[in-house]
Amino acid sequence: MSESLTGNCLVAQSGGPTSVINSTLAGVITEALKHEDEINEIYGGLNGVQGILNEEFVNLAEESQLTVRGLRYTPGPALGSCRFKLKKQEDYDRLLKIFEAHDIKYFFYIGGNDSQDTSLKIHEAALAKGLPLRVIGLPKTVDNDLPITDHCPGYGSVIKYIATTVRELACDHQGMGNHDIVSIVEVMGRSAGWIAAGASLAKRKDHPHDAPHMILLPEVAFNPAKFVAEVQNVLKSEKFCMIVVGEGLVDENGNYVSASAKLDAFGHPALGGTADYLQGLIEEATGIKAKTTKLGYAQRCAAHCSSKTDNDEAFLTGVAAVQAAMKGESGKMVTLLRADTNEYKIETGLADLKEIANQVKAFPLQWVNEDGISLNYQFNKYAAALINGEVQVPFENGLPNFVRISNSRVEKKLGEAQAV
Amino acid sequence: MSESLTGNCLVAQSGGPTSVINSTLAGVITEALKHEDEINEIYGGLNGVQGILNEEFVNLAEESQLTVRGLRYTPGPALGSCRFKLKKQEDYDRLLKIFEAHDIKYFFYIGGNDSQDTSLKIHEAALAKGLPLRVIGLPKTVDNDLPITDHCPGYGSVIKYIATTVRELACDHQGMGNHDIVSIVEVMGRSAGWIAAGASLAKRKDHPHDAPHMILLPEVAFNPAKFVAEVQNVLKSEKFCMIVVGEGLVDENGNYVSASAKLDAFGHPALGGTADYLQGLIEEATGIKAKTTKLGYAQRCAAHCSSKTDNDEAFLTGVAAVQAAMKGESGKMVTLLRADTNEYKIETGLADLKEIANQVKAFPLQWVNEDGISLNYQFNKYAAALINGEVQVPFENGLPNFVRISNSRVEKKLGEAQAV
Repeated sequence: MSESLTGNCLVAQSGGPTSVINSTLAGVITEALKHEDEINEIYGGLNGVQGILNEEFVNLAEESQLTVRGLRYTPGPALGSCRFKLKKQEDYDRLLKIFEAHDIKYFFYIGGNDSQDTSLKIHEAALAKGLPLRVIGLPKTVDNDLPITDHCPGYGSVIKYIATTVRELACDHQGMGNHDIVSIVEVMGRSAGWIAAGASLAKRKDHPHDAPHMILLPEVAFNPAKFVAEVQNVLKSEKFCMIVVGEGLVDENGNYVSASAKLDAFGHPALGGTADYLQGLIEEATGIKAKTTKLGYAQRCAAHCSSKTDNDEAFLTGVAAVQAAMKGESGKMVTLLRADTNEYKIETGLADLKEIANQVKAFPLQWVNEDGISLNYQFNKYAAALINGEVQVPFENGLPNFVRISNSRVEKKLGEAQAV
Repeated sequence: MSESLTGNCLVAQSGGPTSVINSTLAGVITEALKHEDEINEIYGGLNGVQGILNEEFVNLAEESQLTVRGLRYTPGPALGSCRFKLKKQEDYDRLLKIFEAHDIKYFFYIGGNDSQDTSLKIHEAALAKGLPLRVIGLPKTVDNDLPITDHCPGYGSVIKYIATTVRELACDHQGMGNHDIVSIVEVMGRSAGWIAAGASLAKRKDHPHDAPHMILLPEVAFNPAKFVAEVQNVLKSEKFCMIVVGEGLVDENGNYVSASAKLDAFGHPALGGTADYLQGLIEEATGIKAKTTKLGYAQRCAAHCSSKTDNDEAFLTGVAAVQAAMKGESGKMVTLLRADTNEYKIETGLADLKEIANQVKAFPLQWVNEDGISLNYQFNKYAAALINGEVQVPFENGLPNFVRISNSRVEKKLGEAQAV
């Protein structure tokens, strides 16, 4: 496997972005430039596999060093993303034909669960045809639900932003606490409580009564009566009650408390309104006006409040992916491995895409306290390390100065695609 | 009026907080310490006039210098706030009795429109009784709707946070733009568009097509058909459509598009759900799933993204208030006066509370472009100066390290109050 392979490399992004998704891209570009014997051109594929099927490539080596540096703190997928699944054999055939036409020997795909599955299938299709192609998946998801890897780039930043927001809201509400205040913050998390749990970091050490007073996870069946009683309980002892809820909260029958009938492109239910549901419940049961904050997509792109640890690791996975491909690896995803030391230390590893694709890492229920609404020491230790350090985003005229790629297009070789 | 007056000073906070409300408090404390000939004790009144009526005072001179420095970046009212209107003559009588008992000769009240009215009435009540009391109001409101002053401390920070969030969301959506994305950000603004308008700063100079593509102000009657047509129009030319809407959006009959029957303590309608209303409208008319972000109270306490200009000015008003009181002023509010120079320069001034109390500065309609959904050069020039510079909030273990006052209580002199 480790024989030398020379050609072009292609990097693309897929799925929902994170605050640090382009730091991984910068890592790939930076490392790829160092391997001029193996890598001739560094192409970016626009809009993931959907754009690649249309030969939408840009020449990333033409980007200025300033732009590559700027990618390290620019949120959103700089190359564009997609939520598109390769379904038919023709899709794979065309993709590999395009790879051949453009002499793509290395393919780096930055994405979450669905995207790792796409990477695996491209790897297998190339193998089946005997084509020399090395495919490496790069982890990226605020959902933190990829298996094997200790955590996913993007997760540290989303929970740092949420914990910061909760701590600020606590200052706000604490000072307004001469009447009952119930405040509900809705965060992402369709099926797992990883993101909501991160709000736990807002509590100061040894201050278990700090906000958030209740964290509602999709893993813990929601009981309306118990919830209302707990809100009233908190209001008795604290000046306000702050609740953080994951959007995918379910009732005791496993139904979303606020489900929408619509499905997204992958057939997952599209949720929303969970905070509104809780607000209605509280107001009806207690007469207290509850306030809601819905961070929406702002939480997955809040680069101005991203974690330096997370950002550095995102870059590192990009570097490690290129290095692995140079060593002949394919069909693997870069993982982050936490050393079993007191001080937080991370190394990168590799996992078979077969063990990653379409798998979901469940939130460990042993990290939830018996009350079902708070997290224990193990979780806080796990998560606290991921939010350390602040990324110094350059501001200009009072606002973050994000970059855009110059979009230097590579000429198409196969012409227009079939409709995709 | 300028004869020397010696006694204690009392500072308190009222109404909804801002990210920089405690910077004003720090300004008052810092300046008050310099006038030891006139000011013996520096008291803080807890929970505004509501707490003052219960003699809930703390000794602010006992706070460490570290805490006073920390107040400069800690959001939420550190002394506690209230939404409480003195109504009966007995309230004023009791308040002045408490002031006499504690030898309060200087009263500084940090607040918005309603609070300036309270300050005015306390000033007048003291005058009527011939009591030596100097009352100075300090401006504080994210709503930016106090008259005479060029702008209000708190406003620069809320629009910096919103414009930053919009710019980040634009990066996110731009990259996901291989299918139609409609994104709605709901911001505060019950009756005026000051806050929503500030989102305009997210556009880069000379890039009028940047997000936000539509800013919906409470001042511009909402027309559903025109709105839907414009969303479709934007989607044709841009990769996504981003809308920023003030919560107090009204229809052509002047009714809130999403009104709740409930009223707050001051009889203002309590709003919410304006973004949800627009989302429903878009989905029904176009079938496109719209995404909503509701920044809620997070926008008024986002100290981690506050404006240094705003923060410095908030501090400056605190200093100016004490200096004015030392010169014998009373019944005044500190104002911010913008010099008529190209470079942004601010001086403080004083305005009669009579001209401030219960007045509302309307958003200048001549700053809205003819399209009704964007702001012109005059507004952007006005607002851009207010968001300059970043406050360096100290982070510890990855989160902002806010301070709390130590709550060193002053002994009550009159005993328990009547029920308030």
